[in-house]
Amino acid sequence: MTEPSSSTPSPVISLVLRLLTFISILISLTILTTNSATIVVNSTELKLRFKDVHAYRYMLFALVVGLPYILLQIVFGIYHVSMGKRISSSGESLLQFDFYADKVMSYILATGTGAAFGATLDLKEVFSELGSNYNKFFNKGSAAASFILFAFLFTAVSSVFSSLALPKKL
Amino acid sequence: MTEPSSSTPSPVISLVLRLLTFISILISLTILTTNSATIVVNSTELKLRFKDVHAYRYMLFALVVGLPYILLQIVFGIYHVSMGKRISSSGESLLQFDFYADKVMSYILATGTGAAFGATLDLKEVFSELGSNYNKFFNKGSAAASFILFAFLFTAVSSVFSSLALPKKL
Repeated sequence: MTEPSSSTPSPVISLVLRLLTFISILISLTILTTNSATIVVNSTELKLRFKDVHAYRYMLFALVVGLPYILLQIVFGIYHVSMGKRISSSGESLLQFDFYADKVMSYILATGTGAAFGATLDLKEVFSELGSNYNKFFNKGSAAASFILFAFLFTAVSSVFSSLALPKKL
Repeated sequence: MTEPSSSTPSPVISLVLRLLTFISILISLTILTTNSATIVVNSTELKLRFKDVHAYRYMLFALVVGLPYILLQIVFGIYHVSMGKRISSSGESLLQFDFYADKVMSYILATGTGAAFGATLDLKEVFSELGSNYNKFFNKGSAAASFILFAFLFTAVSSVFSSLALPKKL
């Protein structure tokens, strides 16, 4: 069993970070998937949904990949806090898993954040003259983007911790 | 002087990665900043430039921040390869600098990649009926986005290496 080095934070701090990530993902996912707007084009009513925006579909992918991963990390974290040790009999391979998984997960959330803000800001401007329903749709898009940004930032900090916790020799 | 652990790659591989990142950033920057399209709206000629797209302005920020950083890392890398040791008398603090700087830099490039693709794909679709000049503009946008994606991926690998090279106790 390899114990993390003295530079790594307490398991409680790590667990709180995971819980904050989980909440951010859940809020972002809820706002994103319930976002729709009814617009009128040539006297025909059309429903605009998040699926109609490529960037929002990628955002959904990032959130849906992130959710079970963070849940898994919360289970690991609760075990670590309550039992005082990592869940695995081979602590070293779990530290390596954390390291690579946090890295990949934080990059997926980072690109999701970029896509979400990139599309929202520019599409909002393009559609700004087409009525308030469009504006509301993209304002909710901004709100969802803000929460995936929080999820990304929390995961980035988790990734720093899991890098520092790596044993020296892999 | 702290030597990196045996799990870290040779200085030559690290340097090649930095050179590939540098080339990708340079190509992306060139395509991005020279991209423009002349469009006709109500018989008035308008020039569309990359600055008119928020996501492309953020992309420029990511590339402009990345360029001097990668140049610095190339200088460090050439010194390491030619002299057989790191440039600093305090190797440990340089390893820490690499670790944090690579992490931050790779996240900036990741969000830049997300923004670039997010805006390009959705704006291209919105403007697809407004003529071929728009299409060309966003096709060049896609090309620039592809090269910032390469720069991000190379930096992500560099970031894995600089994490593995961290001494155990900070």
